[in-house]
Amino acid sequence: MAFGWIDGQAEARRRAGLVRTLRPRPADSPLLDLASNDYLGLAHHPETAEGAARAARTWGGGATGSRLVTGTTELHTELERELADFCGVEAALVFSSGYAANLAAVTALGPHGSLVVSDAGNHASLIDGCRLARGTTQVVGHADPDAVRKALGTHEGAAVVVSDTVFSVDGDAAPLAALAAVCREYGAGLVVDDAHGLGVLGDGGRGAPHAAGLAGAGDVVVTATLSKSLGSQGGVVLGPARVIDHLVNEARTFIFDTGLAPAAVGAALAALRLLRREPQRAARARQVAAELHARLTAAGLEAVRPDAAVVSVRAPSPEQAVRWAADCRTAGLAVGCFRPPSVPDGISRLRLTARADLSGAEIERAVRVIGETRP
Amino acid sequence: MAFGWIDGQAEARRRAGLVRTLRPRPADSPLLDLASNDYLGLAHHPETAEGAARAARTWGGGATGSRLVTGTTELHTELERELADFCGVEAALVFSSGYAANLAAVTALGPHGSLVVSDAGNHASLIDGCRLARGTTQVVGHADPDAVRKALGTHEGAAVVVSDTVFSVDGDAAPLAALAAVCREYGAGLVVDDAHGLGVLGDGGRGAPHAAGLAGAGDVVVTATLSKSLGSQGGVVLGPARVIDHLVNEARTFIFDTGLAPAAVGAALAALRLLRREPQRAARARQVAAELHARLTAAGLEAVRPDAAVVSVRAPSPEQAVRWAADCRTAGLAVGCFRPPSVPDGISRLRLTARADLSGAEIERAVRVIGETRP
Repeated sequence: MAFGWIDGQAEARRRAGLVRTLRPRPADSPLLDLASNDYLGLAHHPETAEGAARAARTWGGGATGSRLVTGTTELHTELERELADFCGVEAALVFSSGYAANLAAVTALGPHGSLVVSDAGNHASLIDGCRLARGTTQVVGHADPDAVRKALGTHEGAAVVVSDTVFSVDGDAAPLAALAAVCREYGAGLVVDDAHGLGVLGDGGRGAPHAAGLAGAGDVVVTATLSKSLGSQGGVVLGPARVIDHLVNEARTFIFDTGLAPAAVGAALAALRLLRREPQRAARARQVAAELHARLTAAGLEAVRPDAAVVSVRAPSPEQAVRWAADCRTAGLAVGCFRPPSVPDGISRLRLTARADLSGAEIERAVRVIGETRP
Repeated sequence: MAFGWIDGQAEARRRAGLVRTLRPRPADSPLLDLASNDYLGLAHHPETAEGAARAARTWGGGATGSRLVTGTTELHTELERELADFCGVEAALVFSSGYAANLAAVTALGPHGSLVVSDAGNHASLIDGCRLARGTTQVVGHADPDAVRKALGTHEGAAVVVSDTVFSVDGDAAPLAALAAVCREYGAGLVVDDAHGLGVLGDGGRGAPHAAGLAGAGDVVVTATLSKSLGSQGGVVLGPARVIDHLVNEARTFIFDTGLAPAAVGAALAALRLLRREPQRAARARQVAAELHARLTAAGLEAVRPDAAVVSVRAPSPEQAVRWAADCRTAGLAVGCFRPPSVPDGISRLRLTARADLSGAEIERAVRVIGETRP
């Protein structure tokens, strides 16, 4: 029978306690949210929502076609210009998701005959980008510039190094300056995904590459999402104009996808302008993360020191991680729960996200609940 | 120098006259639009825009996380239930794009050891899905059930046949009933992308699989976009509940992507409800396409008889196709222009899309402009 084999897989998941289920949330969830990626608290900000609503009214419900046909509005161009200006790069190109942006960047910059060096901790979308790219991928140890150097030394011709700037699971930062230096030794390009850095790291939230002094570099390409700090949906590639032109002409997830909906463009634009007006939101997100970490550690929990706004807390086992997160939820606290196969190292953890708009009392409550429910 | 090789490619594109450029459109474009995929004219319908605006105000600018963490709102569930009900299937799963939905369906249903049989004319997103899938892909001739039978006969074990229902370039329909029959002979699954069928074909726009009597079949999985007939953004996979559960657990572009923005969910939901209330829109889109085809053919142009709402007109060469489309634009008419490398057969064409809300006078004007500007 067609698809008969999936029942066996479902049964195996059930036995292993690894079934994933969707939990629809109401508009006015009573849970304290430390699970979303809404780092700056802008997804629910009235200006962001109004940006979306106004754009939908002016430009319609959808972009109506590929960006190359009817799907580029003047609003897309406005967002791209402001994102490029904010991040200090020549040009920006907006996609329907960060996933699509990463597939585009890696495939278009890792052509046949090239070498793509990829960090072992990279996000699924970068990994899929490597798999789709026509170049040869070499996976190197996590956050290890020496391993990157060794990989680049084995190859003649075009090469690109691909890394998250802030890794999603543990929230640790990549050694960007060292990676850029190694790339320059070998004339390789550097492609970094700043999904968890934009809005949180760098001057006023300009991102990890900006903080590392790489903004505007001719050999660095930055990808990011509009769905985290900017409270909307979509992805963006930021870099030299010639690279952006190349993507317009070659990236399949740009050419063959419908353009980002005007409402998402409008929401991201409103959030970006808000962030420029209130740059302290970025520092506040980092401060909340540091406070969460300090209090969790003081309570005897094993938490990774956060480099951005993600705080990872180790759990003894996948089963206990799942029960821990469920107990937090029962106590009114939403936290993320990462476990195999979503974690490259097999270690299960709670994943907490700091939000710039968390109050001191909320931080205290979150830490208390996590401590009280620990396995 | 890093990325130095892209300059050579850019120069080659320039020499070949194949440079793609973005043309931002204003909110009140004076062009008559026969280029978008807004088949039912719903992208700009006030109810669609209002659906987006209301959702953004209620649910925020973004979904804030993966569908498995905080990214599933009750609005997502509502849309999924109504889409499944409309198309006559057990369950539906919404993605941030049709591209992501296709990557999800093909990769999750084409596991290691399986055979994936793919039509040579399939959309880029299905092709990329095949490349990412761990199974072995066999590409077969366009719309050729015998070739599919032959491919399935070579393989023991799980197999899936993948096809567009309406092919994007020429607007021709796949032989769905015959494909389903062949799949059943071999116990293979059928995955069809109804991006250009939903809202246009079938009873009240229920899509090509519904028209072919395949709605609700246990061995058929349908993907579609929310960005064409439904005037929004996003993608959907429709099928048996067990297949949808499988995708929730296994599909990387579902698990590792931010959920579709509430505004896009709200816009699609409003458009779907509008279509249910005004089912004649689907028939009208087909009628406009037939009329366009008849008039173009009467004017001596080589147009492919449309099976849905896409009308393809042959151009003598890529250069002439580009000039033809540009001349149409100068005369106030937006048409699509497909040419290598976007066309699998190397034949350049103008691509016209019928919209249900085109008036008789607009159709007449479009045909006149296309005739007067022909190379």
